[in-house]
Amino acid sequence: MSDNTVFKLLGRRLRLAVIGGGPGSFIGAMHRQAARLDDRYELVAAALSSDPERSRITGQGIGVAQDRCYPSGQDLIDAEAQRPDGAEVVAIMTPNDSHYQFAMQALERGLDVICDKPMTNTLPEAEALHARVQATGLVFCLTHNYTGYPMVRQAKAMVMGGQLGEIRLVQVEYVQGGRAKSGPGRKAWKEDPARGGPSLVLGDIGTHAHNLLRFITGLEVAQVAAEVGSIVPDRITHDYAGAMLRMSNGARGSFWVTQAAAGVENGLRIRVSGSLGSLEWHQEHPQVLQFKPLDAPAQVRTPNGPGTLPLSARASRIVAGHPEGFHEAFANLYTDAADAIAARRSGQTADPLSLHFPNATDGLQGIRFVAAAVASSHQQGAWTSL
Amino acid sequence: MSDNTVFKLLGRRLRLAVIGGGPGSFIGAMHRQAARLDDRYELVAAALSSDPERSRITGQGIGVAQDRCYPSGQDLIDAEAQRPDGAEVVAIMTPNDSHYQFAMQALERGLDVICDKPMTNTLPEAEALHARVQATGLVFCLTHNYTGYPMVRQAKAMVMGGQLGEIRLVQVEYVQGGRAKSGPGRKAWKEDPARGGPSLVLGDIGTHAHNLLRFITGLEVAQVAAEVGSIVPDRITHDYAGAMLRMSNGARGSFWVTQAAAGVENGLRIRVSGSLGSLEWHQEHPQVLQFKPLDAPAQVRTPNGPGTLPLSARASRIVAGHPEGFHEAFANLYTDAADAIAARRSGQTADPLSLHFPNATDGLQGIRFVAAAVASSHQQGAWTSL
Amino acid sequence: MSDNTVFKLLGRRLRLAVIGGGPGSFIGAMHRQAARLDDRYELVAAALSSDPERSRITGQGIGVAQDRCYPSGQDLIDAEAQRPDGAEVVAIMTPNDSHYQFAMQALERGLDVICDKPMTNTLPEAEALHARVQATGLVFCLTHNYTGYPMVRQAKAMVMGGQLGEIRLVQVEYVQGGRAKSGPGRKAWKEDPARGGPSLVLGDIGTHAHNLLRFITGLEVAQVAAEVGSIVPDRITHDYAGAMLRMSNGARGSFWVTQAAAGVENGLRIRVSGSLGSLEWHQEHPQVLQFKPLDAPAQVRTPNGPGTLPLSARASRIVAGHPEGFHEAFANLYTDAADAIAARRSGQTADPLSLHFPNATDGLQGIRFVAAAVASSHQQGAWTSL
Amino acid sequence: MSDNTVFKLLGRRLRLAVIGGGPGSFIGAMHRQAARLDDRYELVAAALSSDPERSRITGQGIGVAQDRCYPSGQDLIDAEAQRPDGAEVVAIMTPNDSHYQFAMQALERGLDVICDKPMTNTLPEAEALHARVQATGLVFCLTHNYTGYPMVRQAKAMVMGGQLGEIRLVQVEYVQGGRAKSGPGRKAWKEDPARGGPSLVLGDIGTHAHNLLRFITGLEVAQVAAEVGSIVPDRITHDYAGAMLRMSNGARGSFWVTQAAAGVENGLRIRVSGSLGSLEWHQEHPQVLQFKPLDAPAQVRTPNGPGTLPLSARASRIVAGHPEGFHEAFANLYTDAADAIAARRSGQTADPLSLHFPNATDGLQGIRFVAAAVASSHQQGAWTSL
Repeated sequence: MSDNTVFKLLGRRLRLAVIGGGPGSFIGAMHRQAARLDDRYELVAAALSSDPERSRITGQGIGVAQDRCYPSGQDLIDAEAQRPDGAEVVAIMTPNDSHYQFAMQALERGLDVICDKPMTNTLPEAEALHARVQATGLVFCLTHNYTGYPMVRQAKAMVMGGQLGEIRLVQVEYVQGGRAKSGPGRKAWKEDPARGGPSLVLGDIGTHAHNLLRFITGLEVAQVAAEVGSIVPDRITHDYAGAMLRMSNGARGSFWVTQAAAGVENGLRIRVSGSLGSLEWHQEHPQVLQFKPLDAPAQVRTPNGPGTLPLSARASRIVAGHPEGFHEAFANLYTDAADAIAARRSGQTADPLSLHFPNATDGLQGIRFVAAAVASSHQQGAWTSL
Repeated sequence: MSDNTVFKLLGRRLRLAVIGGGPGSFIGAMHRQAARLDDRYELVAAALSSDPERSRITGQGIGVAQDRCYPSGQDLIDAEAQRPDGAEVVAIMTPNDSHYQFAMQALERGLDVICDKPMTNTLPEAEALHARVQATGLVFCLTHNYTGYPMVRQAKAMVMGGQLGEIRLVQVEYVQGGRAKSGPGRKAWKEDPARGGPSLVLGDIGTHAHNLLRFITGLEVAQVAAEVGSIVPDRITHDYAGAMLRMSNGARGSFWVTQAAAGVENGLRIRVSGSLGSLEWHQEHPQVLQFKPLDAPAQVRTPNGPGTLPLSARASRIVAGHPEGFHEAFANLYTDAADAIAARRSGQTADPLSLHFPNATDGLQGIRFVAAAVASSHQQGAWTSL
Repeated sequence: MSDNTVFKLLGRRLRLAVIGGGPGSFIGAMHRQAARLDDRYELVAAALSSDPERSRITGQGIGVAQDRCYPSGQDLIDAEAQRPDGAEVVAIMTPNDSHYQFAMQALERGLDVICDKPMTNTLPEAEALHARVQATGLVFCLTHNYTGYPMVRQAKAMVMGGQLGEIRLVQVEYVQGGRAKSGPGRKAWKEDPARGGPSLVLGDIGTHAHNLLRFITGLEVAQVAAEVGSIVPDRITHDYAGAMLRMSNGARGSFWVTQAAAGVENGLRIRVSGSLGSLEWHQEHPQVLQFKPLDAPAQVRTPNGPGTLPLSARASRIVAGHPEGFHEAFANLYTDAADAIAARRSGQTADPLSLHFPNATDGLQGIRFVAAAVASSHQQGAWTSL
Repeated sequence: MSDNTVFKLLGRRLRLAVIGGGPGSFIGAMHRQAARLDDRYELVAAALSSDPERSRITGQGIGVAQDRCYPSGQDLIDAEAQRPDGAEVVAIMTPNDSHYQFAMQALERGLDVICDKPMTNTLPEAEALHARVQATGLVFCLTHNYTGYPMVRQAKAMVMGGQLGEIRLVQVEYVQGGRAKSGPGRKAWKEDPARGGPSLVLGDIGTHAHNLLRFITGLEVAQVAAEVGSIVPDRITHDYAGAMLRMSNGARGSFWVTQAAAGVENGLRIRVSGSLGSLEWHQEHPQVLQFKPLDAPAQVRTPNGPGTLPLSARASRIVAGHPEGFHEAFANLYTDAADAIAARRSGQTADPLSLHFPNATDGLQGIRFVAAAVASSHQQGAWTSL
């Protein structure tokens, strides 16, 4: 990540606008830090609040000029699209139910989009948005940020390179404790199905788990048999989902996500087993990738350590032994997207290694998975095709 | 485990006979080491081979007198039952399909039994054996040895003591790589369904996972939705099984077992989450029990460390920091069984802490689980009651 | 770190200039990323090469205007100090032998300074620089970046709060493998004592270890008995140093640093034991702080987990379970320094929690430690006072 | 360990007597369990108390016949040496100050000896005992039990096989918390220098650390510069010792032992770095040996996993993934010693792999190390030759 491709291609940073992510938002700060880390973006506009005064104050608090602080995403998009120096990229980090609207508006105006997951709350919206992205050719980056970790990319590259042989078994779990107590959690809007989506746990973290599995293995979930529900008393939205998986190549798998496991922090864990060995990765220790070959000693792979493949090397800024974390993984998506956007806008071909960021197809597949899992659960766990 | 209860009650060791576990058998050596560790048994008779000459030679190789080396389990039981100094306890470690026969014969003769898991290959056999044990009042110990680990017992004791609150979510996985290659593995008889049972992976390790879950939580699996199958090419027997679980109190869970995960050694892992916190344990690091309370720092519990409960303390011979392992866990079952047998034979009441070893009820529940999971899989994953 | 204090106090970012850290420099990129992460700095000037053309090209590659790319640090300081919109802060990341010169020049011109460690190569320089900082009242931040990790700050805060009782025993080791082979390593200038300093291993990583110990415990090393030398054949500079420590309060300690441990990545590890418990931290898993109380279960503390103290909370941008790494730790120093600089320049009082970044006193103490250790080694390990 | 060499060579078990290790003794129970595990010994005599009545009762409690329970070690040795069926091996687990006496008496009577560490309290005693062992040719096994762990033996075998290249750097630490509080700890006699030896921490655990280092590297400590002392208030005996090491081949090292690190359990850790890679092992996770090659991915070696060398394979009874612990390591010494004793007594040549148990030479080297470290500390850390 050392060379700034955007400077090279455009002679300047990309102009970025943010919709959502105001004061107190963890994810809002994360997006902006991620955008800054590799210096490919300049933040020029923001819509942080529907209250004009508050939008202006909070926008200035993150360094946006007063006249480019907008009271709504639509205002921002309309105004910036008309400025000669207007934003070129819009990053959307609003509650889930408005992703679709803002993303469509931005695409209509020719703006590239970076969007929080889940892409949409409903499958029709996901399909429409996906189609629009395909039609426009604009860049659409979905922040399935866990795919940005160097060792996740190493895992993908090892699978692509055949080091695991034929993939046979997959396991993914994403276990958190943030909703272990009754009552609304950190973000009350999430508990409202109209805003948080039809299955909170699946939309919030299930799509991450599903996407991680697809990213590393290059396989699709073909069929799912699932149970989705609420285990904490008095909760309406889903807080756990278990599933069995049949993958597109015949591999079998296990899937388990919950936000109700008291005391657990952010336990996203994956194991992929092929005919030649197994890989294991755990988000809470992201710089470790365990590789257990069939008949040789187990290995501990680390970022930029021996055996690092180019897709992983691109995703790291350090020499071995210097931990990177969530910010750097998130920044990798921003940087990949920036390189793709700059290439598109300058008529150049992007570095193929930069094109592995999650896109609208990944987003659509995620929403399909949520829909299929919910449908399966309604049918008493019947195997359901995606 | 420091006081030898058997010496105290009987003034001598219990007389033990072994059926199966001849030369080259890992589990045979393990049984005998477990029997010796706490000095409650004297090995007096053995049936290690159906070839009389070989039975004699191998029996002498483990210290059994020539005239008490038998060519069959039945011969052993018949002869020893008639000797005034005959074996009082029979340990059965033959292929799965003969557990039933030898256990029934031993019980008929008034001998206490220690038996390898799975208890039987079929549900009718399991029910008959369970009924027989209940009828005789003899001790029947099933070697679900993972319940012998001090930190597994600590987990159970913490759940029983309410430290986790209401149990809500459970996850258990048992992942091995021993059958990752095509072709028969270490023990060819296991790949023959007539001997290894209707579902190799479920009988071999699935029953361990199921029993561990029941042991720690005190809950039963009420319903299961499962897929069981073979993922390695050209394999007849099952090598993976995934399931969703509904527990007797309404808790939900995930279950995943396989012997086809290349490079993985012996990955039995469990997480139990209640309203007040979560417990995590992994067999490959058995001396660590992670306790993650709802709103307090995560803890690392260790054998005989601060907070050790009596059920765990009984299961450990060490001062904190001195690792115990598989042998000691296995020995804990032998020692618990010995204390129960000696109490029974001397008309005393056994220490209640000694009575948590797996028994015929546990064995029956395991076979019921296997049957239900297989039935569910045949019905496309339909929820199936045990 | 969510509120941008610099924006609040100054209404804009601080103007930053960098000296050194050109293309291919890991630490140069790290400084600039650290400066960007919390958005308190704008990079306005750079001196990356003594070749004017190359300085201009590389400067533009990191976004600096052509006319503010300088061929030397002195040129940069002279020119920027005269501009009304000139740099206010100079970050120095040149080879060790020029830290003194550039830092002194910057201070003379009233610029605040951020400087790579070790502060200087010689003790007289360190003393002079320290005196100059004291005299000017300018901010001087030395990038002992490991003190920026949230769990290192948690450790310090726990010690300060008395949770460990009286400190009795300390152990620090810093083990790397980067110089395990004969011949010059990654940075040839380091192997030249005139540039890399009198003891490469002590200057490069020994000062980190020494500073980490002081930071967490609040104690000084009073006396050292050391051996410093070269273990890899044909090496002139030191590649290992072992020492025994007597701390200012009578605590005792062990110190071990080397860059010649083949295969080891970046193993900085510390244990601090007091009368009430022990803390353990390892840089390769920086989000974990083990706390082992005297008579209670061991704890695993994590950033923003339960029990987080304010000094640690300030150093983290995340919700628990989302790993931060080396960049964020480094950025914490930049951000602390920025808050101190903005307070000074606006005549405000800085938040006391922001004032724990390493300063000139820490730098001087580090050079004193190096000098004492080398002197002790020359005297066959005699106890030597700092 | 599957074949019982003693049965093969002698047709029976070795007759074992124990001196010391009565009720409540952790180490007494450990010795007897270790003796039983591999079934090479029959316990025939015991001296557990100087009170005859108590000696008889406690002896019977561990299964010894009434007439072979003795009120003293000397009585035991005298009586057993005259019986035709008398003990052949004496295991000594009394306080340190009587090891010498009982070991000498046993050797005089032609009995093989297994003895707790440290071998003696004084150097003259160690030299005399060592000379006596050499003169008699009897087996003398010193229970430096940590050398019995499979992965410690794997480490030794890897070093012997050249996989680490030339050894350059060593680090060993042994950190416990058992004496973190003022006042006598678990075993009051240890705090009495007349019984516990001139340096409690060095005798108790320092000799373990020193022996482990020698065992794995095959090198001797040539010179030591040390500080030994008491850090807990009101303690007379030593509770910490730090040292720098110069090894016989020129390698350098660090040594740190303490029993005063509050909350730490049993932290014996070693790192050995050679020109081709580094090995790391930690007693609290004994089944893991980390191997970090110079230019290849780090490996995690496990007992009986891929790459296991014969010396390690001999020390394990399991298939990979089934943890062994302290008991098994301890038993390995008993079993090795048994095989050597049975070979000697039957005039056969012992398997060379069985001859790596710690012996009188190891014991003498340990006492020399203690003496040199204490002498160095008295001379302000002067480098002192062993």
